[in-house]
Parts: sequence; C-alpha cells; structure tokens
Amino acid sequence: MQTVPWWSELTELFPDKARVVRTESVLDAHGRDFTYHLPHLPDAVVFVRSRDEVVTVMQFAHRHQIPVVPFGVGSSLEGHVIPVQGGISLDFTQMNRIVEFRPDDFLVRVEPGVTREQLNEYLRHEGLFFPVDPGANATIGGMTATNASGTNAVRYGVMRDQVKGLEVVLADGTVLHTGGLAVKSSAGYNLTGLFVGSEGTLGVFTEITLRLQAIPEQVVAARAVFPDLDTVSKAAAELTSSGLSLGRIELVDAGTVHVVNAYKGTHYDEAPTLFLEFSGAEPGVARDVEMAQEICEGAGCTAIVFERDKAAREKLWEARHHASLAMMASAPGKKHMVTDVCVPISALPGALHHARETIDAYGLDGMILGHVGDGNYHAGFMVDPADEADMARFRAVNEAIVEYALSRGGTCTGEHGVGLGKRKYLAREHGEEALAVMRGIKRLFDPQGILNPEKVVVEKRADD
Amino acid sequence: MQTVPWWSELTELFPDKARVVRTESVLDAHGRDFTYHLPHLPDAVVFVRSRDEVVTVMQFAHRHQIPVVPFGVGSSLEGHVIPVQGGISLDFTQMNRIVEFRPDDFLVRVEPGVTREQLNEYLRHEGLFFPVDPGANATIGGMTATNASGTNAVRYGVMRDQVKGLEVVLADGTVLHTGGLAVKSSAGYNLTGLFVGSEGTLGVFTEITLRLQAIPEQVVAARAVFPDLDTVSKAAAELTSSGLSLGRIELVDAGTVHVVNAYKGTHYDEAPTLFLEFSGAEPGVARDVEMAQEICEGAGCTAIVFERDKAAREKLWEARHHASLAMMASAPGKKHMVTDVCVPISALPGALHHARETIDAYGLDGMILGHVGDGNYHAGFMVDPADEADMARFRAVNEAIVEYALSRGGTCTGEHGVGLGKRKYLAREHGEEALAVMRGIKRLFDPQGILNPEKVVVEKRADD
Repeated sequence: MQTVPWWSELTELFPDKARVVRTESVLDAHGRDFTYHLPHLPDAVVFVRSRDEVVTVMQFAHRHQIPVVPFGVGSSLEGHVIPVQGGISLDFTQMNRIVEFRPDDFLVRVEPGVTREQLNEYLRHEGLFFPVDPGANATIGGMTATNASGTNAVRYGVMRDQVKGLEVVLADGTVLHTGGLAVKSSAGYNLTGLFVGSEGTLGVFTEITLRLQAIPEQVVAARAVFPDLDTVSKAAAELTSSGLSLGRIELVDAGTVHVVNAYKGTHYDEAPTLFLEFSGAEPGVARDVEMAQEICEGAGCTAIVFERDKAAREKLWEARHHASLAMMASAPGKKHMVTDVCVPISALPGALHHARETIDAYGLDGMILGHVGDGNYHAGFMVDPADEADMARFRAVNEAIVEYALSRGGTCTGEHGVGLGKRKYLAREHGEEALAVMRGIKRLFDPQGILNPEKVVVEKRADD
Repeated sequence: MQTVPWWSELTELFPDKARVVRTESVLDAHGRDFTYHLPHLPDAVVFVRSRDEVVTVMQFAHRHQIPVVPFGVGSSLEGHVIPVQGGISLDFTQMNRIVEFRPDDFLVRVEPGVTREQLNEYLRHEGLFFPVDPGANATIGGMTATNASGTNAVRYGVMRDQVKGLEVVLADGTVLHTGGLAVKSSAGYNLTGLFVGSEGTLGVFTEITLRLQAIPEQVVAARAVFPDLDTVSKAAAELTSSGLSLGRIELVDAGTVHVVNAYKGTHYDEAPTLFLEFSGAEPGVARDVEMAQEICEGAGCTAIVFERDKAAREKLWEARHHASLAMMASAPGKKHMVTDVCVPISALPGALHHARETIDAYGLDGMILGHVGDGNYHAGFMVDPADEADMARFRAVNEAIVEYALSRGGTCTGEHGVGLGKRKYLAREHGEEALAVMRGIKRLFDPQGILNPEKVVVEKRADD
C-alpha cells in the first residue's frame, strides 16, 4: 500500500529538491491566468531546467497517469495554464537559454522559457529582431503553444510562420525532433505546424527554432483619429487592401483611449483611432506614409500625427500595448474577459459595427480594439465571475460576436487560442467531422489524457 | 461468387459511363510521371467532376479496399502519382472551376484541377496573382499535395503559406472542412497545414482556398554572369542575407545555360548565372537594383544585364522555367532524375561546391540549378533506368548530396516531396521517433492503407 504521496516520489528524482515546490503561494500563482477563468491549483510545481528533466517528469507522469500543464509566465487569456485536474505545473522560467544563434541564416534556437523581450534584447546589436509581439512579455514556449501573433502579424505573420523546428517531449517521455534549419521542406507530414498552437495538449516543447527578421532601415509611426467606429473601420479595411506595405495597423475605440490616458498619463484624443506603422527602406516608407495619409483623410479622419523619433514611437506603441493592463487597472477587483474573433478583411467594418451594437444592447461597458490588418479584433470587459447575471450577459455578447464571425467565414479565436473558453465553438467553426479528427490526433499523441487535460478538444460532453 | 470485376461495379455508380476509363492509352498516361520512377498502371481512371463524385469513389474504394491515387497533370518528380498497387487513378482535370473569388479579401476558392496558369489567367485583370510557380503548369491540387514552391517562394513563401482552407474527402468518404477565410486562426489543431504536403496519403482535396497577392507596381529582371560556381554561390548567399527585397533569385550552372540555349534558341553566356527579379513600389525597386548590382560586382560577376520590358522579362524567365524541359530534350529516350535538397543559406556555397565535386568524381553529366534564395537547389541528370550500373552511380550521387544537406540541418526535399524517391531518407532527416508519429497519423487517417499507398511513410520494410 502506497502511503507516500506521488510528489514526494517525484522530488526524489531531482537532486535539487527545491525544484519541486508545493508552497501555497507558488501553487496559487500556477493555478490562474490573467482572466475570469476559475482558478484550480496544481498539486506540485516543477521548475525544470533541461530537456532531460522534462523527460524525467513526463516519464513519471506517464507511469502514474498524472496531468502535466506547461507554464511560461501565465499570460494566456483562455485558461490554458490552469491545471483543471490538478497534477504538475511544469514551469519553464528557469529553462531560458539561447541555444544557438545563426545570424547568417536568420535563425535562432531557444529554450521555451526565453521571453520575447529577452530574445530581442539578445538580438538588439545584431541588426535582427523577432517580430511576433502579443503585447505581454510572454515566453516563446507559450507563444508557440497558442500560435500567438499580435501587432506585427500583418507584416511578418504569426508564430506558425516563424517556427522552423521543435524539440518536443511526448506524453510517454519520448523525445521528438521536427523541422530543421532549411527555409522550406516537403519532407513528410508537417509535425511542426501541428504542434504549434496545440496548447500543451500533444507534447511539451523543450527547444524552438525561430526565423528572425532584419531590423527595418526606417520606421514611421502614426496616430489617425476618426469621428466614429464606422469611419475608422472602413479606413482600416481600405488601408489593408490598398497594397501598402503596412508594418502594423491597430484600431482602438474611444473607451480604450480613455483608459489608456488614465493609466499612462497620456493625452491622446479620446476618439476611435488607428495606430499605424510603416517600415522598410527609406524611399518606400516615404511613399507609403503619403498614401496612407491620403486614404485616412479620404475616409474622414479628423487628425493624423506622425512620429519618426524612436522614443516617441516607442511611447505610442507602449500606450497601445498597455491597453489590456489599462483596462484591468480601470476596474480593480474585477477580472478580464476578452473576445478574439478574426474575420475576412471585407467583413471587418460590419463585424465591428455589430459588436458595438451588441455590447450596447446588453448595456455592458466594453472596449473594442484589434489587429485590424488581419481582421482580428477584441472586445474587452471587466467582469465579476461571482455575479452570475452579469456573467450570463457577457457570455451572450461573446456568443453573438463569435456567431457573427463564424457566419462570415471567420474564426472564434484569431490568436489567443482555445484553452477552456473557446472549446464550445470548435464544432461550429470546423464541423463535427474535423473535430472528430482533432480528437483522434489528441488520442494518438496522448492516449492517457495527461497532457493539459480538458483543453482544446475533449471527448464529447454535455457542455461542449 | 463475384465474377463482375470491381471497375464494372464502379462504372454503374456514374450515370456518364465515359467517366470511368480503362483504355490502354489512358491507363498508361496515369501510370507514370516525368521521371525515372518505374511505371505501374492503375486498373481504372475516374474523371471526377464534383465533391460528391469523389465521395462516391472513396466510399466505393473503402468498401472494397481499393487503392486511390489522386492525379492532376502528372508533373510530379518523385513518383507520387504512380499507382504502385494499381487501383483507381482519380483524375481531377475536369474538376477545375473557380468556385469563389473575393478580391477584397485577397482570396480565391478553387477546385483542385485548376492549373496555376488557368488561375493567373483568370486573375490577370484584377490586379492580383497567385505567386507559387514551380515551373510546370501543375494543378493547384497537386501543388497543395506536395507543398510545392519554386522561383517566387523567396518572396511569397510556399504552398503551405498560401492555403487558408481545404475541403477534404477522407478515406471512408467523410467530408471534412479545415481552415476558413480569416487571415489567421488559433482555433485548434492545424489540420490545413497537415494536409498540405501529405501527397494524397491522408485525404483527397476537393476544394482549396488560396491567398492571393497584389501584382507589384514595378518589376525588373536581371541576369548576372559569373566566372565559376564558387563565386556565383557566394554572391547568391550574400544577396539573400543582404536584406534586399528579392522577388526571385535563381542560380543555373554553365551546363544548364547550354541546354537552354540549344532548346530555346537563346544566346545567353554559357557560364554560371544568377537570374534575379526585383519587384515592388518604384522607389524601392530602383534602390534594390542598385544594391544588387554592387553586391554582384563585388562578388566578381563578369556581366550583368537588366530587363525592364515585360516581354524581355518573360523571355528570360521562360528560359529559366524551361530548364527541365531543355534537359529532357537534350537526351531523348532517357529519363529525368533530379535531387531537391534545401540547406541553411550559410551552407549553400559549400553544398553547391560539394555537389559539383561529387558529380564530377562519379563521372556523371549533371546540371546544377536552384532556388538559391531558399537554399534549395537541384542536380539534374538524364538516366536510363534499365542501365543498372549507371543507376547505381546516380543513386550514390543523390545519396551523397542528401547526406551533405542533412549533416548541415537541411532537408532531403525542399519542394518536390517524398513520393517514392525520398522515403528512405525520412528516418535520417527526422529520426525514428518522428517517423513513428507520422506512421501513426497515416494509420489514423487511413487505417486500410488505400490512400496513395507506399508514398511518404510506409510501415517499416527492408528497403526503408
């Protein structure tokens, strides 16, 4: 009869006993994300530092059928990191080395705990950078797991476009390598692309090979202010399909500018605004700036301000990137809830109009902002998860926004991922046939169901 | 006791009996590709015209366990379309409608039998084009199945970057939809990317949603001549990592120019040459052209000729694209055999040098050309498959070239796919663990093994 709990046995596998932690504060920090999703504590947190340690943990978990949930900085927005069945939270923050940098090949190999800012700090003096920027200083592992994107995606693409290869530990501890250092390959099934966006449900990443980009010669940022949501969204669609080489194109509504001003002490016009960036070789940028100004003015913008200076540009983008933090600061004690649909560009103005009307119809206080060059936008709310009546209204709005996007050929999640919050939309988005195939893939990779259980796809249940 | 052969039963399922064909010439045309791979006839060719007909065929094949091999124009280069176990060749050339064109979303939905040139002809007056260009006028279905790329990939990426969604008929006739019309999505496992490059072994495509590109404002082509392979390959690597916005960068050796001149009646210098293209907004192109000229001259180029006129540019690129045809025409009666490795850019000069030395050491007549901006190059030979001694030498050269590429982190196939010819390298490239996962995926999608059997991955056998 076993009386020693499994975490004691697990601790014995680590010479450094401090790496397996069960203190309340650490369990608590690994039981929640930034959002309204209900917390659930892991039984133990393991701070791994190497591929071999991950193998040790997975072999142990496989033997004992213990759930394992990979954890970066916990900035996910759909409950991905919450260990809903307890078990092990696998913390990667101490596994954060740059393994190999190949400047001539525009490639870098990193451990999953490397953060976006850490990587760009490392690259700063090399004339290269890593473009994916979801706002939060997330880990590369987490960004890979959710197929993150953000403001730069309109130019450089999403995580799946950057990841050239992976080292993955499977559910039983087997180590797998996918992809490689070549720019392209047609050598068999695309396992790399399958693991990217799998949210820790198919395997645990221990190394990631990323494509890098040259720092553009010139960068110009702009802020274009519009009288209302309809004009700003039409301008966004027009800019996007103009053929201009846009670096970023972000839309924020008046409410978003308001909370940002309060949080950052800025004085931006509290009106619907496009934050734009143009980058590249000098002559092209000059012409793009000119054409963008014409399009914005033609669409009815009331003011447009350009920022060429690096510090001024960084201030502008920091304001945009801190919109979520500003929203959270505006309602202390409440929790963040954010939609994440993505629609075809031509459907964007209609989608934004519909979202605003729906939010107003339910009498909610919601802000709209988004990566509109990709047709991806967010409606953000601050909610009290204990207030069931309020939660029902938020869910209804979320539902209506997703329904609208799906009816236009869009997706329920452009970049945040499925986690817990978007599972119920997968069948409607992809069809039962595709969902059945996804379930088959999950069973193939994780027959015991120990890898981040209940995320992305689950066996059919009443609430799905 | 069944005495009616299965193809008679299959014919009964089609009101138009002429769609199931068993004439010798048709079987013969569907039993081979362009290359040295040994032909094998199908038992019947079915000319499908709709998704529902594909479902009918797959349900029938599933019931009777009959192999099904999708067929476009048969321009594959590794035996993909050869029905090595007989069965049904599923011909898509009559299923070639443009289903929906969405210019504002830069998207088009097509049936798999649409060819690349047909699509671009359709788009010509819309200011848009489809960029992937493998040279042959292949079908979109075939290009999707092999994750094709070609000369434009250095700018626009490969097929997997263009395919936003698929309609797929599975082995048992189930219809599946993947992806959608949104630019990006994080909604579950990336089935689209898994099917792209699966070479007909996981499902049969019946509709493909493609991303389109704006036709660039200005295009300039160039031909830069170099004294030897080492200087041309170093120039190629330098141009590629220069940060210039290259549209295309193609390397051909002296032998390739020689057969092209003979085939096309052109008079290009019979020396190692870079074919270049610069495209985009006018001011950027002018600067790129200037910088490229500097780099080429610095690397020792002996002549550089620019072509701005559309007809002259097209003539230049037709010469490059007809290199394979020119090679075939140079040795009537023989068969084409071509390597397809892709290496990290920094390894390209070494790889080309090694390839040339290896070909010479074996006393073979081989030409080298490639999409060097991606690190992808081909060594092409004309062979007599019946000459066992010669074939052994070609195989040894192929083996040495692949081995070199893999040792540098490259791939055995950059764009042609695995088919029959590259199966034996998959374990060395990806490792047995990854190959086991690929086999698991194959079994999940096709438990009876009826979808293009013996291609990409096969159960472990002596020759693999």
